[in-house]
Amino acid sequence: MLASKLYAPTLREMPSDADVISQQYMLRAGFIRKMSSGLYSFLPLAWRSIRKIEGIVREELDAAGAQEIMMPIIQPAEIWKESGRWNAYGAEMIRLHDRHDNEYCLGPTHEEMITTLVKNEINSYRQLPVNLYQIQNKYRDERRPRYGLMRSREFIMKDAYSFDADEAGLDIQYKLMYDAYSNIFARCGLTCKPVEADSGAIGGSNTHEFMAIAEAGEADIIHCTKCDYAANIEIGKPGIMKQTEEALKELEVVETPHANTIDAVAEMLSLPLEKTIKAVVFAIEDKVILAIVRGDHEVNEVAVQHAVDGNVEPEMATPEQLVRVGLTAGFISPVGLKQSEEFAIVVDESVMETFNVCGGANKPDAHYININPKRDFNVENIIVAPIRLITDEDVCPTCGGELAKSKGIEVGQVFKLGTKYSEALGATFLDQNGRPNPMVMGCYGIGVSRTLAAAIEQYHDENGIIWPRSIAPFEVVIVPINAKDEALMETSTTIYNELKSAGVDVLLDDRKDRAGVKFKDADLIGYPLRITVSKNTLESNEVELKVRKNGEAINTPIADVKAKVEELLETL
Amino acid sequence: MLASKLYAPTLREMPSDADVISQQYMLRAGFIRKMSSGLYSFLPLAWRSIRKIEGIVREELDAAGAQEIMMPIIQPAEIWKESGRWNAYGAEMIRLHDRHDNEYCLGPTHEEMITTLVKNEINSYRQLPVNLYQIQNKYRDERRPRYGLMRSREFIMKDAYSFDADEAGLDIQYKLMYDAYSNIFARCGLTCKPVEADSGAIGGSNTHEFMAIAEAGEADIIHCTKCDYAANIEIGKPGIMKQTEEALKELEVVETPHANTIDAVAEMLSLPLEKTIKAVVFAIEDKVILAIVRGDHEVNEVAVQHAVDGNVEPEMATPEQLVRVGLTAGFISPVGLKQSEEFAIVVDESVMETFNVCGGANKPDAHYININPKRDFNVENIIVAPIRLITDEDVCPTCGGELAKSKGIEVGQVFKLGTKYSEALGATFLDQNGRPNPMVMGCYGIGVSRTLAAAIEQYHDENGIIWPRSIAPFEVVIVPINAKDEALMETSTTIYNELKSAGVDVLLDDRKDRAGVKFKDADLIGYPLRITVSKNTLESNEVELKVRKNGEAINTPIADVKAKVEELLETL
Repeated sequence: MLASKLYAPTLREMPSDADVISQQYMLRAGFIRKMSSGLYSFLPLAWRSIRKIEGIVREELDAAGAQEIMMPIIQPAEIWKESGRWNAYGAEMIRLHDRHDNEYCLGPTHEEMITTLVKNEINSYRQLPVNLYQIQNKYRDERRPRYGLMRSREFIMKDAYSFDADEAGLDIQYKLMYDAYSNIFARCGLTCKPVEADSGAIGGSNTHEFMAIAEAGEADIIHCTKCDYAANIEIGKPGIMKQTEEALKELEVVETPHANTIDAVAEMLSLPLEKTIKAVVFAIEDKVILAIVRGDHEVNEVAVQHAVDGNVEPEMATPEQLVRVGLTAGFISPVGLKQSEEFAIVVDESVMETFNVCGGANKPDAHYININPKRDFNVENIIVAPIRLITDEDVCPTCGGELAKSKGIEVGQVFKLGTKYSEALGATFLDQNGRPNPMVMGCYGIGVSRTLAAAIEQYHDENGIIWPRSIAPFEVVIVPINAKDEALMETSTTIYNELKSAGVDVLLDDRKDRAGVKFKDADLIGYPLRITVSKNTLESNEVELKVRKNGEAINTPIADVKAKVEELLETL
Repeated sequence: MLASKLYAPTLREMPSDADVISQQYMLRAGFIRKMSSGLYSFLPLAWRSIRKIEGIVREELDAAGAQEIMMPIIQPAEIWKESGRWNAYGAEMIRLHDRHDNEYCLGPTHEEMITTLVKNEINSYRQLPVNLYQIQNKYRDERRPRYGLMRSREFIMKDAYSFDADEAGLDIQYKLMYDAYSNIFARCGLTCKPVEADSGAIGGSNTHEFMAIAEAGEADIIHCTKCDYAANIEIGKPGIMKQTEEALKELEVVETPHANTIDAVAEMLSLPLEKTIKAVVFAIEDKVILAIVRGDHEVNEVAVQHAVDGNVEPEMATPEQLVRVGLTAGFISPVGLKQSEEFAIVVDESVMETFNVCGGANKPDAHYININPKRDFNVENIIVAPIRLITDEDVCPTCGGELAKSKGIEVGQVFKLGTKYSEALGATFLDQNGRPNPMVMGCYGIGVSRTLAAAIEQYHDENGIIWPRSIAPFEVVIVPINAKDEALMETSTTIYNELKSAGVDVLLDDRKDRAGVKFKDADLIGYPLRITVSKNTLESNEVELKVRKNGEAINTPIADVKAKVEELLETL
């Protein structure tokens, strides 16, 4: 392709709302354009890369025995009502009506639909296993779309669903997909870590997230520096932190005017944070949940949800909900409180091991000191559970080794769903004894557009993107220093044709711009390899090959260019 | 691929609502499944074919200089309001709100969005021309989805948009795309005719539809048996049919109780249909339109719309609208009527050339006889226009030759849009003199999923589909007569591997079913070539090659299979 024909409009100024590197560079280099909040157009450069990612996904999934299909994006409400998720999905689901006033949604995921699809077709264990996938736009009406392609409202996803006769079959499929995912992300050039994760609203028991390690990631990961243990901190099980035993002092109320955060109280009373307890109040539907952790710990919302067997993710309680259960914001502790139908108290295990700590007195501008949970809480009437977030001060739950934290972009997830959807939607098969059984399902997602963004987050420098060769929009760019110079253009065109015939994905920058502009664009767009054709080197029948990744520049005889390019690309 | 692993569930009974052959065969053979009215899932067989069609589309469009992009499916309402089409699109457009109550639609087409996209990027004539395309789901909320993939609510479309500095540039793009489309449909194996067409709601002046000729087609086409003329009958310009001049008899009212159709009146009065005139009453928004043609002719709605300069397609007038302008349904003629702000009278040219004809008397159960339009209509106060549908009794408007009619499935359309959208949305560029001009646009659509259905409508017999090789889900199926026979399976597998290595897209039917079942499936699914491996022929080291298209069966030495397959595929 010729750069003069390529539709890749670059921007001089960065849009003010580009909040991560991948978005900034993709906007500046003409990869994407924002059409509306969380809605992006992919221009030719980005689309070339997306199609390469899709190609890798297809090859690996086909090799793992999955088959590509395409289901509708528009899904009838009925199947979501059957599974019980029509309401559970809340405002994130985009809903619509047709002209006959039938209800539909734009699929955020396709468990209901695929289960409905296969349940009419698969009747016998002989037809199992089946693994079907599609690559398709998905829709989530994010409250605050951000981070460019990483959290948009319309995004490209590969979703796959497996159906097996039993758990053992599912285990095999899960392993196949786990391995396929490892291959896919490796082939895309990503540094990716599979971590244990929470199954969230989708249900199921066993799941791993594939995390592209990057500062811009929204997920916090904890991993062991000694063994293979790695988990989303949401799921990382913290140990119980014990405090040195002290004589129990008498519970006492102190005035703490305006000190409605635990930090303010600790400062006012000159207490270390671990000698305080803090309260976070959630709600799941109509139930208010008071969560208590030590002042130096953070609440794990997922653990809170599990502790109360919540169907949906907890949200922060509203002021009205606090009032309804008699809580005074900023001054809450479980002392003197009891659970009820509409009110749960969940206390972290480590809180129960504290002595003489400070917490809210359940009235304005006042705190208790010398709280001793085992003495002062209604211990028969609260839930004690590990609800704090694990930190790198904990030890590895598997081997006791030291833990480290990092940030990750979730680019893929594999789930063992079990029979949740097959039971809800009646997808049964007859086993070898002629008895009906629900199919055992797995589901497997890859964020295709997010993978594109994650690659940029991992591979860039101050000048632009540094594409892994496998997903670069073009593998090689040829830059004649001066496109008006016939000799340079002739050599460039010869090399271009030679590389093209050899199957190299190459762009010839035939634009009449100054060399500096073309070099800057090449760096910004991030082609793995640049071939510079200049008078200088041409005198000795050479051109310069420059590797974007490390800046290495090699003068190469024109006759050897093809061989050298192929050799270098192997390493990129 | 192995048939035992292929997810292609066949149906024994035909769903009762399958109304065309393509839908029937695709359902029976496990290509597609209906999820909801007008919403289909593509199973692996169909998806393989779709991807082959997409591949052909991409190759030809890329060769014609277009570049692939991907715009959002969800489109903000604002850009549609800017172009004036938010209301014009009516109930066919699927609309939705996000959580912040912003209005959006699911794109039925992307003129507004692409114009918005490029207008911020292209500023100079130097950046033109540009031609961008995408392959994407499109959405139209059909009142009555039908004909399977041919008129569904969610469908796969390739849409392309070109931007030029002037009409001459557009002409070049148009020709490029016209030729690319001819290549695409030819390579897909379709018998396709480009016909002149109406530009409809999309605007613009010059347009061709690519029609796959098939009985199941919804479009009526007229074409000349002598020259190249071919047109959608909506656009075909009928000549003026003159009647033999007669002495003008006196206008007279006759009673015609209950005869409220022209056929009933003609029968009651023993008149030939051409001696009657009939009325059809339309409405465009609030304007009622009385259209008059001869009793033996049909009204062309598109011509009616043009005759009154309507912005949108005419709909049938409601009983209330008739009452409002004082019309008596079933007994209408223009005699004594006058146009007004809210009421137009459009009379076909051939009606004006009639003598002593019968038409409604504008009161119940009564007709006029001896209407002489030039005498009896308010000729200064009506619109005379060619509003009847052309028929094969007309002569070719180009060469005067004989016309013939056929049915077509619209699989593609190319449009010269001109500056309609660039003006409405402010997409201007600076010309060589530094003056701003609106870009001159073209748009070009291909119904990808409809092309799949059209191929089946064109190529099938009573046993199933007969795929053109280029878009067949598999090119070749190998059927060992008995999959439990090791010798047969060994030979089959050897041939399978040999063909696969040669790049042939081949399926091995390793299922343990009876040969009859496998043959029936092979015919139903429609693989272009079947290789039968049986004890019979194996004795002489041969297998049978059978061509689906013509039933020709050729015994071929195993050593020659690859060469023979490649030779035959060239012809399929």
